[in-house]
Amino acid sequence: MSHQIDPTLLPFFDPKGIAVIGASTAPAKLGFGVARNLAQSGYTGAIHFVNPRGGRLLGRPVYPDIAAVPDPVDLAMVIVPAPMVPDTLAGIGRRGIRAAVIASGGFRETGPEGAALEAECLRVAREHAIRLIGPNCVGLIDTHLPLDTTFLPPPGPTPGDIAFISHSGAICAAVIDWARGQGFGLSHLISLGNQIDVRETDTLAAVAADPHTRVITLYLEGISDGRRFVRAAREVTRDKPIIALKVGRYSGGRRAVASHTGALAGQESAYNAAFHRAGVIRANTSEELFDWARALAWCPLPAGPDVAVLTNAGGPGVTAADALEGHGLRLAELLPETQTALRAILPPDASVRNPVDMLAAATAGQYAQSLGILLDDPGVHSVMVVLPPPPMESAGGVARALIPIIFAAGKPVVVALMGERMIQEAVEYFRAARVPEYRFPERAASALAVLTERARKVSDAAGELPLRLPDTRPDEARRALDDWRAAGGAPGEFLPFEVVGDMLAAYDIPVPRALPAATAAEAVDLAWQVGFPVALKVASPDIVHKTEVGGVLLNLTGPDEVAAGFATVTANARAAAPAARLDGVHVQRMVTSGQEVIIGAVQDPQFGAVVMFGSGGVEVEGLRDVEFALAPLTRGDATGLLERTWAGRRLAGFRNLPPADRAAVLDMIRRLGQLAADFPELAEIELNPVRVLPDGEGAFAVDVRARLAPDWPPGGRGLSE
Amino acid sequence: MSHQIDPTLLPFFDPKGIAVIGASTAPAKLGFGVARNLAQSGYTGAIHFVNPRGGRLLGRPVYPDIAAVPDPVDLAMVIVPAPMVPDTLAGIGRRGIRAAVIASGGFRETGPEGAALEAECLRVAREHAIRLIGPNCVGLIDTHLPLDTTFLPPPGPTPGDIAFISHSGAICAAVIDWARGQGFGLSHLISLGNQIDVRETDTLAAVAADPHTRVITLYLEGISDGRRFVRAAREVTRDKPIIALKVGRYSGGRRAVASHTGALAGQESAYNAAFHRAGVIRANTSEELFDWARALAWCPLPAGPDVAVLTNAGGPGVTAADALEGHGLRLAELLPETQTALRAILPPDASVRNPVDMLAAATAGQYAQSLGILLDDPGVHSVMVVLPPPPMESAGGVARALIPIIFAAGKPVVVALMGERMIQEAVEYFRAARVPEYRFPERAASALAVLTERARKVSDAAGELPLRLPDTRPDEARRALDDWRAAGGAPGEFLPFEVVGDMLAAYDIPVPRALPAATAAEAVDLAWQVGFPVALKVASPDIVHKTEVGGVLLNLTGPDEVAAGFATVTANARAAAPAARLDGVHVQRMVTSGQEVIIGAVQDPQFGAVVMFGSGGVEVEGLRDVEFALAPLTRGDATGLLERTWAGRRLAGFRNLPPADRAAVLDMIRRLGQLAADFPELAEIELNPVRVLPDGEGAFAVDVRARLAPDWPPGGRGLSE
Repeated sequence: MSHQIDPTLLPFFDPKGIAVIGASTAPAKLGFGVARNLAQSGYTGAIHFVNPRGGRLLGRPVYPDIAAVPDPVDLAMVIVPAPMVPDTLAGIGRRGIRAAVIASGGFRETGPEGAALEAECLRVAREHAIRLIGPNCVGLIDTHLPLDTTFLPPPGPTPGDIAFISHSGAICAAVIDWARGQGFGLSHLISLGNQIDVRETDTLAAVAADPHTRVITLYLEGISDGRRFVRAAREVTRDKPIIALKVGRYSGGRRAVASHTGALAGQESAYNAAFHRAGVIRANTSEELFDWARALAWCPLPAGPDVAVLTNAGGPGVTAADALEGHGLRLAELLPETQTALRAILPPDASVRNPVDMLAAATAGQYAQSLGILLDDPGVHSVMVVLPPPPMESAGGVARALIPIIFAAGKPVVVALMGERMIQEAVEYFRAARVPEYRFPERAASALAVLTERARKVSDAAGELPLRLPDTRPDEARRALDDWRAAGGAPGEFLPFEVVGDMLAAYDIPVPRALPAATAAEAVDLAWQVGFPVALKVASPDIVHKTEVGGVLLNLTGPDEVAAGFATVTANARAAAPAARLDGVHVQRMVTSGQEVIIGAVQDPQFGAVVMFGSGGVEVEGLRDVEFALAPLTRGDATGLLERTWAGRRLAGFRNLPPADRAAVLDMIRRLGQLAADFPELAEIELNPVRVLPDGEGAFAVDVRARLAPDWPPGGRGLSE
Repeated sequence: MSHQIDPTLLPFFDPKGIAVIGASTAPAKLGFGVARNLAQSGYTGAIHFVNPRGGRLLGRPVYPDIAAVPDPVDLAMVIVPAPMVPDTLAGIGRRGIRAAVIASGGFRETGPEGAALEAECLRVAREHAIRLIGPNCVGLIDTHLPLDTTFLPPPGPTPGDIAFISHSGAICAAVIDWARGQGFGLSHLISLGNQIDVRETDTLAAVAADPHTRVITLYLEGISDGRRFVRAAREVTRDKPIIALKVGRYSGGRRAVASHTGALAGQESAYNAAFHRAGVIRANTSEELFDWARALAWCPLPAGPDVAVLTNAGGPGVTAADALEGHGLRLAELLPETQTALRAILPPDASVRNPVDMLAAATAGQYAQSLGILLDDPGVHSVMVVLPPPPMESAGGVARALIPIIFAAGKPVVVALMGERMIQEAVEYFRAARVPEYRFPERAASALAVLTERARKVSDAAGELPLRLPDTRPDEARRALDDWRAAGGAPGEFLPFEVVGDMLAAYDIPVPRALPAATAAEAVDLAWQVGFPVALKVASPDIVHKTEVGGVLLNLTGPDEVAAGFATVTANARAAAPAARLDGVHVQRMVTSGQEVIIGAVQDPQFGAVVMFGSGGVEVEGLRDVEFALAPLTRGDATGLLERTWAGRRLAGFRNLPPADRAAVLDMIRRLGQLAADFPELAEIELNPVRVLPDGEGAFAVDVRARLAPDWPPGGRGLSE
């Protein structure tokens, strides 16, 4: 698979020559660290040091000025004090270099003055068409090229197959050190710092294109351009897995929202929906990030969720079984012939049912033979070997016997080594052989679950892309909105019911007819027209939660009730909200039966339109039975929303509830998603409740609310896909 | 605090002399391992070896027979082949020894023959009044006495303050090895094996009484006598924390159940309720068990949930903040004077708001001073120090500077060391000083959360015990049940509505009056009597889910509707369940408004009566908004059920729902709990829905179902508290 790399970024990934500007002879200075690491990294291109003091460093001349540096040179490492960086960049530009990494700190992270300096750097870089990584970053490592432009104290990472791209420099230092200790290598390490130019999204394709990289891990504190990230990551994940640890979950302030969807659609929901769309696996902790990366880098993908557990004691087997089921995997049912084969080589008291317990005296040979037998069972999709300190054998001997079997297997095998010093030799063998090993069955189970998730994502990714639905008429919806604006409607306001109704109609989203009545007599006439029973809802641009002011009467079955009802709801509304403008009522045909769901959409500042689906009614926020997806949605996206919520699963029928019209709901979800994607100025739109009638009878949005963004149009920013 | 220790167990914990029966001179034999470990353990009592071959072993005589062993001897370690164990026990008994650990395997775990042998061991032991640990166990370790009766290859655990009691021997071996590697010691290790006599509950008091033990950790595959465990553990946790890893979560088969409560009350719900009542903290993974144990053993308890984070970089601070909030803790708001004090010692670009980021150049002195300043802030209840490999300092130097401050603090401080080899020196310092250190902020946050949970449990434990409620009249309920049995009612059957109604009335649980009518005319009469609107429900001992057969009509407002309704529900029931016995209908006053909740109870085989509370209606199993507590309940238990469910929180009012009668719900929960505790033959009882009216107006069980256990009374087994 080929990945499209922006050619202006190539000097970062395959530089012909590098100039270290600020290279220093003082060992305590970062400028010495960069020079030392680059010189020791084995980089085979040209290395040039620059410092006004001149002299020699590490056996090389130090040029007083970048202008003096000879060819080839196409990448500059800048490690000079922050105030000198703009001039340094100008010199780099004049020298004809078009890529620079600014390792120096002292910019935006220090306050307004630093931010101004940073802006000046960007201005100079743009003037000279220089691409920038940083400032305030650790730099770049490519262990295979090889190349190390960081100032971190050695040793650097060992060569490996996991790429790490990070918004935090401190995390880079920790990960390099931790990876060495945990016995896995890295292919690339990219520290992005303040990201004034090159961002996480820009680097994905180049890293993915490296054949040494088998998995990409990301440490993210946010994403700069959500939709572009989703597109780029989606391309990469068709080929190679991406795992992201996204932090800053809880730091987001509260936004002013008026709908349930708005209240529940925190930024994390949008990130989850975006990662889902992009095929990115989200890790919850730093340890998961690399536990999972090792499994994805080193194991084939399983064909299904059925796992065999091989161990030499009861307790570890039970622990493993629990952990597997807790992660949504299953204990494989072993075939009778598998059990017979195990029985033939194991002592009579051994358990040959899954988990397979060979008993404490199990030899290395029995471990290896049993593993082979389990891998031959077609109902076994993966194997977890659990190895407490074996009383009779050395754990290292067991590891040596297992490794050839694992190498030959087309199925994933992970190892849970229980203990520490007595299993250390086995740990070293497994690490050298790139067999994922974990200290306890729980973490091994989590790794197998991720392999299974990745296998599913790969097969899903072969599927459909969002397609425009037929019978969506954005022009017609646009007209309804424009007409209202022309009549004085303003950003930030709630849209009148009729306007939303017209917009929904333009997307063929069924809403029971609701007609405005200014007087009781008009209301009665309209009730005859739409058909009893009807609902009366107070009509006011200022009242959003109508039930809370007593502004809604339901199930009115005759003209007298309607006439009396008109007086009631208007009086209630006037009492509860004396300042609200009252335009009379809306008369609406009641859909009184059916399952209640909610379908809503909001605009996320990073990712654009996000659709929510779940249990409807007034308790949406209490039950939190909701899920999110980026709009527009494929049919698979919409089906996923139904599968992941009780409201969605219930549509198939439950107890005395008959199967409801799932197809109508799926259609409505996608149509609302298309509308939200087409109208980014719709800050929130929510159909709640939607009543879903029995199969074939449709689904109807009983109530609707929609609000325009207060700041629309935003400063020239577009959010279209 | 004194713990009551069963005197017959004292020889296991403070033996005067130990005989190793089956001591062997062959180094590959377990009988050699036991002799070696005991001799090397530093045990100061008498050590005697027994083997028919005689001779000498490790410089001591080997007696041919236990009868020949001189005083003092009060504990026997048995490591002979399984078939010889019963005779060996008889010899032990004749020698006057009243305590034995059977390390040998070959019993129940190998099949029926082994089980028979095990039963014979128990019989012999009872005959001679011998208490037994095992068989099929690893033995006992007390690092402070000291004593080591295991056969595991050395080294054993270092002396420490964490006790480990385990149902699995293999896990013991792994934990000893892992603890050494992770740098923490153990006080006791007890391997219980097949538990034919001494069980986990028996050992708790003795282990807790040891002043060296600060925390007790349990690896459980089940509990033998649930209520006794709860009582014993509750006594211990008033003084010392217990953390349990309970495995076998997913292995339980499906039981035949007829109610929502029965369907949702898996054994794990009962275990959770039991641990809650006992004050036991439940770990989810092996790593959590010991991550948490170290924090609980080594830290003071925090006065609240507000945490300060001290670090030298932005990324680690964000990661820590996320992890803290994810674990239900809060970032402390630092006082202005705290910020001023920090500002005075840190560089101007440092962040003195929480998380405190001292920047990469932070010195060991700045770490120490800043920690001191944070600990002085009264709004800071605990501190997490996050330490990536510091670029300028050695991590070891930072550790040395921090440790005295941590020692002097009356608040918990945990350390997240990020990396591996570069922070190793710091790791060693912190471990030696018993400061809990973790590799990433996520695990450190989880440890702080457990300290906070423990602090809350300690203050809760000072509270009330279940008290019998006034106005519960078990005799009256017993009479209703006995009358029905006398009239032919049988175990396993559903109780007729009238019988349940009488039992509930005896506990002052309000149920709308529901009266049986055999004919339509009777139904109309009764409707006038209870008051319209009424519900009609088909009366049949064979139909449980009445709505599913069309056997329920609601909201009938007049006599004609009732007469017609009688015909409808009986016809529907007959059509749907032709074999069902039909006794007419029940006529019941309708409570048509109020919030719907469910209150149910089941009998757990281990823990007796368990009460469930949550969102009611037909979707109980879909929403799973339910929580469980052991019955009978304190007021605090019942309040906890309300706080942990949406159904309970909603009772305080939500949107247009007015505040409902919480007091009535709390009362009903406790009354149903008392009923279920008083009537262990009630396999399931469920009030669903319960309609909760506005505050002061009460709560009513609209529908009720109850079933007697099919096997009641069980073989003489009592479940009373």
